[in-house]
Amino acid sequence: MPLVRKLSAFVALSAEEISVLESLRKRRRTFVAGRDLVHQGQSDQTAYILMSGWACSYKILADGQRQIIDFQIPGDFLALRSVLLHMSDHSVEPVTDIEVTEVLKSDLLEAFAQTPRLALAIFWAASRDEAMVVEHLVGIGRRDAAVRVAHFLLELGARLSLVGMGDKAGFACPLTQYFVADAIGLSAVHVNRVLRQLREKGLLTFRDGIVRFDDYDRLVEFAQFDAAYLDQIGPLLA
Amino acid sequence: MPLVRKLSAFVALSAEEISVLESLRKRRRTFVAGRDLVHQGQSDQTAYILMSGWACSYKILADGQRQIIDFQIPGDFLALRSVLLHMSDHSVEPVTDIEVTEVLKSDLLEAFAQTPRLALAIFWAASRDEAMVVEHLVGIGRRDAAVRVAHFLLELGARLSLVGMGDKAGFACPLTQYFVADAIGLSAVHVNRVLRQLREKGLLTFRDGIVRFDDYDRLVEFAQFDAAYLDQIGPLLA
Repeated sequence: MPLVRKLSAFVALSAEEISVLESLRKRRRTFVAGRDLVHQGQSDQTAYILMSGWACSYKILADGQRQIIDFQIPGDFLALRSVLLHMSDHSVEPVTDIEVTEVLKSDLLEAFAQTPRLALAIFWAASRDEAMVVEHLVGIGRRDAAVRVAHFLLELGARLSLVGMGDKAGFACPLTQYFVADAIGLSAVHVNRVLRQLREKGLLTFRDGIVRFDDYDRLVEFAQFDAAYLDQIGPLLA
Repeated sequence: MPLVRKLSAFVALSAEEISVLESLRKRRRTFVAGRDLVHQGQSDQTAYILMSGWACSYKILADGQRQIIDFQIPGDFLALRSVLLHMSDHSVEPVTDIEVTEVLKSDLLEAFAQTPRLALAIFWAASRDEAMVVEHLVGIGRRDAAVRVAHFLLELGARLSLVGMGDKAGFACPLTQYFVADAIGLSAVHVNRVLRQLREKGLLTFRDGIVRFDDYDRLVEFAQFDAAYLDQIGPLLA
């Protein structure tokens, strides 16, 4: 289960804690690409663990503009913070067909009451999610277009590697340039131009659903990418 | 204690839970304005609860640019997510002289093990913090300068009202225009020009350390400000 693999980067889970997570499997559901499963403004929102496929979280402004907050990959929570807020502050759209397991508010309360280490691991995952949103804020606020695109794809690569879906050579990526554009605050045409520049510099190639890092080390330097905020260097709690 | 007041917006704290929070008072410390108390890249970072004064969290990029992530007011945590990450992903600078109480990793582990409702309330506070960062991301990505400034000051006003430091008339604000500029991705000159426009429109006046909402309802409409993401409408858990 990808979530077990991911949380193991923070805490050495016990057999009991793993079985609590595995027990959630019985509430498995599927959603098709493009049909929102979390709705901005909805109260009593359920959270989900993404088992397979990709999703994106986003907000719509009153004037109809859309800002993508982040993409979710297997092992990530969907709408985790919405469970504790009166209403969800964002929506979630499946980028591909996805499989999820439901996490009810009662599951979360029980985890906090019965398995405090698991609750702490979930809190770690939420802290890491926030660190990613902060990094996206810095990117939109301070990075130029080419660095922003490179940083964005390196972050996805590092996150995917944690759940065995990517490495320094690259990863399979279902995102269209429209998704990338809405996430990093550029137009799709601009994203396309930047991707051509990065390819011509021999740094990366994004084509036919594959991101290939053509020169990983040079790309990391170009993007000033320091993966420390992804906190993937091994369990902090024994 | 402002944190008790703030967490009470989420959960009706028991006498025991309040006494756990009050016991942290014994580790009270002060820091002077401008001297960072949390350092990006530092491991084993302590968190703090802000008791009085204002602080700001920020990131420095490799090229020296700075992006302010958020401001903290009394009752807010400082560096909460850094406690669970191997190293802090950000720095914290006191905007004014501040009083804080230390929250050690062991305090957090104990709260999760012994007082699960309190742990859940802390998780709520972290979820709310993340919702604010998300809103800032949307602001920088999608809002024009005047709307961004107005939204930013309305958010501060709503947050301050939760701890009794502001209302619909306005609030005392120690931020210079440089702080505001670094938070919302504009130059200080641009912020100054926008504030003049907002004043001339009869919406708000920011002068001599006071933000005065001259026409609160019209300002809310102008900024398309919907405070739902601040989740201040009363306890979700009895």
